[in-house]
Amino acid sequence: MLPLAVLEEVQAEFVDYRGHGMSIVEMSHRSASYGSVHRGAVDLVRELFHVPEGFDVVFIQGGATMQFGMLAMNLLTDGLKGAYVDTGAWASKALDDGSHHGDVYAAWSGRDLGYARVPDSGELTIRENTRYLHITSNETIGGVQFTNWPDVPVPLVADMSSDLMSRPIPWDRFDVVYGGVQKNLAPAGVALVVIRRSILEHTRHDLAAYFRYDVHATSDSMHNTPPVFPIYVMEKVLRWIRDQGGLPAMKEAAEIRSGLIYQIIDESGGFYVSPVESASRSKMNVVFRIADHALEPHFVAEAAANGMPGLKGHRSVGGCRASVYNAMPQAGVEALCEFMADFQHNAG
Amino acid sequence: MLPLAVLEEVQAEFVDYRGHGMSIVEMSHRSASYGSVHRGAVDLVRELFHVPEGFDVVFIQGGATMQFGMLAMNLLTDGLKGAYVDTGAWASKALDDGSHHGDVYAAWSGRDLGYARVPDSGELTIRENTRYLHITSNETIGGVQFTNWPDVPVPLVADMSSDLMSRPIPWDRFDVVYGGVQKNLAPAGVALVVIRRSILEHTRHDLAAYFRYDVHATSDSMHNTPPVFPIYVMEKVLRWIRDQGGLPAMKEAAEIRSGLIYQIIDESGGFYVSPVESASRSKMNVVFRIADHALEPHFVAEAAANGMPGLKGHRSVGGCRASVYNAMPQAGVEALCEFMADFQHNAG
Repeated sequence: MLPLAVLEEVQAEFVDYRGHGMSIVEMSHRSASYGSVHRGAVDLVRELFHVPEGFDVVFIQGGATMQFGMLAMNLLTDGLKGAYVDTGAWASKALDDGSHHGDVYAAWSGRDLGYARVPDSGELTIRENTRYLHITSNETIGGVQFTNWPDVPVPLVADMSSDLMSRPIPWDRFDVVYGGVQKNLAPAGVALVVIRRSILEHTRHDLAAYFRYDVHATSDSMHNTPPVFPIYVMEKVLRWIRDQGGLPAMKEAAEIRSGLIYQIIDESGGFYVSPVESASRSKMNVVFRIADHALEPHFVAEAAANGMPGLKGHRSVGGCRASVYNAMPQAGVEALCEFMADFQHNAG
Repeated sequence: MLPLAVLEEVQAEFVDYRGHGMSIVEMSHRSASYGSVHRGAVDLVRELFHVPEGFDVVFIQGGATMQFGMLAMNLLTDGLKGAYVDTGAWASKALDDGSHHGDVYAAWSGRDLGYARVPDSGELTIRENTRYLHITSNETIGGVQFTNWPDVPVPLVADMSSDLMSRPIPWDRFDVVYGGVQKNLAPAGVALVVIRRSILEHTRHDLAAYFRYDVHATSDSMHNTPPVFPIYVMEKVLRWIRDQGGLPAMKEAAEIRSGLIYQIIDESGGFYVSPVESASRSKMNVVFRIADHALEPHFVAEAAANGMPGLKGHRSVGGCRASVYNAMPQAGVEALCEFMADFQHNAG
């Protein structure tokens, strides 16, 4: 979901970009017009995400999935190990993919707990020679999210694909933050990767250029033709986020939106059930069951008929899920809550 | 450059895709609407490019540059070697990037000839245990292009980024054909990769999923979120190509467009000079010098002032370059030829 104002602006200038007689997607990535958009997106990420001077902001194609391999390939040199917190489907993929390009292990796994929560720092096992602790800050399928960042003696690396720029983060604890942009920031087709600059001299350099973090960073993400369109839209979404009040406003809105739905669940007297422990509940993906599972298909279908599609849980876990990313207006959530109350009333 | 009709269609349906109340770039890649676009693009590539049944058509982010590494990584298993024809800047990059992921060598190099031509098959040195011969079918900077495909005892792999779908090819000689789409087919952000299906059981599988050809092929390019927007535009451009008469029409138009410019050069009595031998001249990128090099900056500036920007040669070789991709109308080339004749007349 993207802000309507952004979509309308893209539409208006799509065929003839600001009087240049061509579309932005036809322009050379070396043109002044695109260069200004590209730098604007980087600068807005820096400003809004409060990225410190010692980090590079880069755009790399392939989404977070490509980063799963690239990260281990670049950072796990000289026998160093990668520790992963297995909080669900996405964390498991990061670990599996990383295993082909470095020595990786699970510092904790929630699998036996049904992925019902994220761990406390004290539960994490960090081995010697560990280069980083990888976390998935939010799991879209299981609906768990880190609120407190792990306190460990190694740098953090976070896949923030599904809660990217929905809240400020303590940069001093991170070496790399990455995420596909398609949930909160732009159309699919690029990952935002923020890397601590001082680590780039230690990442692997004996790789094809596209696989090297240092190449992307030192070329301002222009080693080859960048994905112009998603970066162009991202620049507009970032301006929209700034206009809304930046990340503190995104964070507050996410807490309000998800809080309204969790309140309906918690006050339903057991009609709706959250499988996630309270402190680990996601503010982006509210996962829930109806205690009488047989009602779930009716719930999903009736919601869709009332203009609220997409409430079916991921096929791997079943149940229901309300995804409430940055661009979701509070009014949409209020309509959902009203529907949930009515549905329970009518089923009772 | 994209066909104007395609840009206008994208613009018209951008905010509300065909009455669905949302943009195509907001839709899930698992939605019926996007699925239909995605399959449509694959089917049109198959139809227009005459891709045989034994090949898979896949879309992978990262452009041709990412393929430089991925190709060697996937195919150069078990000590097999990759042979490369070094025809210029892009071929050199493919070779350099490949060298980090397999045993590669140059089967021929045009470097000492100033990259003035492509080789004949008899000039190629193919070593034992060579898995493939990699060619760059068209070099955008040097302006050379293969017209006759090398006749060698190993499968061909071609980077066709800059002449993708500008002519039919003999599929029986190829194992992999790939190319970034941003010259002839779509906005930047994806590579089209056509792979012989039978080789996928021999490509490397012990890689992160995004690096594996077999994963992209068996998941219909949906292992992770695909780059929806460029694929969506590509589907429209492919329909436009079909409406124009398919690849035979693209090939003929390219020959006419480039032929008009080469004629001006050849009949200029030495005022304009082509650095490329006649049989190797590119039909996509017409590279030329003005014998009096001092006139070149005036030529480029006056052309731009007359609505023909982008005639400056690549900074690494200087001179002038007219890029005439699929979407370039013949009228644009005729205007350029008239300008070139006038410029010579006025300089005389």
